[in-house]
Amino acid sequence: MENDEQSETHAEIMEATYRALCEHGYASLTMQKISDEFEKSKGLLHYHFDSKEELLTAFIDYLLSEFEQDIASIEGPPDEKLDEFIKRFVVVSNTDDRKALHLALLELRAQSPFNDRFRDHLARSDTIVRDVVAEIIDDGITQGVFRADAEPEAVAQLVLASMDGARTRGLTIGDETYPDAVSDALYEYVIDDILVKTNE
Amino acid sequence: MENDEQSETHAEIMEATYRALCEHGYASLTMQKISDEFEKSKGLLHYHFDSKEELLTAFIDYLLSEFEQDIASIEGPPDEKLDEFIKRFVVVSNTDDRKALHLALLELRAQSPFNDRFRDHLARSDTIVRDVVAEIIDDGITQGVFRADAEPEAVAQLVLASMDGARTRGLTIGDETYPDAVSDALYEYVIDDILVKTNE
Repeated sequence: MENDEQSETHAEIMEATYRALCEHGYASLTMQKISDEFEKSKGLLHYHFDSKEELLTAFIDYLLSEFEQDIASIEGPPDEKLDEFIKRFVVVSNTDDRKALHLALLELRAQSPFNDRFRDHLARSDTIVRDVVAEIIDDGITQGVFRADAEPEAVAQLVLASMDGARTRGLTIGDETYPDAVSDALYEYVIDDILVKTNE
Repeated sequence: MENDEQSETHAEIMEATYRALCEHGYASLTMQKISDEFEKSKGLLHYHFDSKEELLTAFIDYLLSEFEQDIASIEGPPDEKLDEFIKRFVVVSNTDDRKALHLALLELRAQSPFNDRFRDHLARSDTIVRDVVAEIIDDGITQGVFRADAEPEAVAQLVLASMDGARTRGLTIGDETYPDAVSDALYEYVIDDILVKTNE
């Protein structure tokens, strides 16, 4: 019972952090601004997290577990799961909240070379996300959806780097069509080539 | 004569900005710190640039023109020019100065949604860099190096997004091998496929 309550509070703090980051960005984020978005007491916030850094490190892990749950919840063949993964990067460009979040995350990422904890958690997140994509490709090979000579790790690395680059470039130059254009090119030059063609 | 002197001073200011950005990063950069790296007078710095923002906008253009000169100076067939373009992203991971510069630029890029001038100059830079790569592919098609059905704009977009994403991820998680791994995948899944195979 107590654990349920604690994990509910944790989730509420993460949602408050999400809202505060979207509204204020990374640079001017304070524990007070997160507390303002949190419906429970400021004391409870500080009971859970000693510092902004500790809270943001937990937030990186929270986004990762949200992502993992999202991908795991897709029922369907591996090629549809891959489509869904790519769509997540494209959708960012379409809602103001997601744009604001990813801009805040870009600022946080730019600090990570000077912050061991951010860097460690981002590196862990990078490995897990790449593994998720590689596993989708691997499952697709087993199920005959993707070609047997496709290399899961290499494809995963290329998909993730190109979509992340597209999102960053789109966000920073204010071009909402960027991730869409890159995903089109990614399908044409990479994904369509590893799909097993069936005669319909 | 006066124009030569002015453009020499401009180049010296840009080099001072480069050094100051590498040493101090973006967030703590001041006109004073740039002036400290500039051998001539602080008055001359302020005569050329009213504000840090104006100076950094000129610096974005300076990096772009350096890049254009670099690529234009490569004597060789289009596929070698493309190799050289990709190598520029990989090399970033190998020298501390380039790493520091690109981290500073990442911070600056994260500010661009809130700064019209940064955004405009970054958008212009993005278009020009993509055009340079698309032109390399286009020339390669004309010269029979790349396949006639390769689409210059789509390939350019994919190359640029994936290498930019690889650089950002490598820098932020401290993995120097990232751009190399993504460039390997890019060759295997995209560039080798558009190369015209010749019987040697």
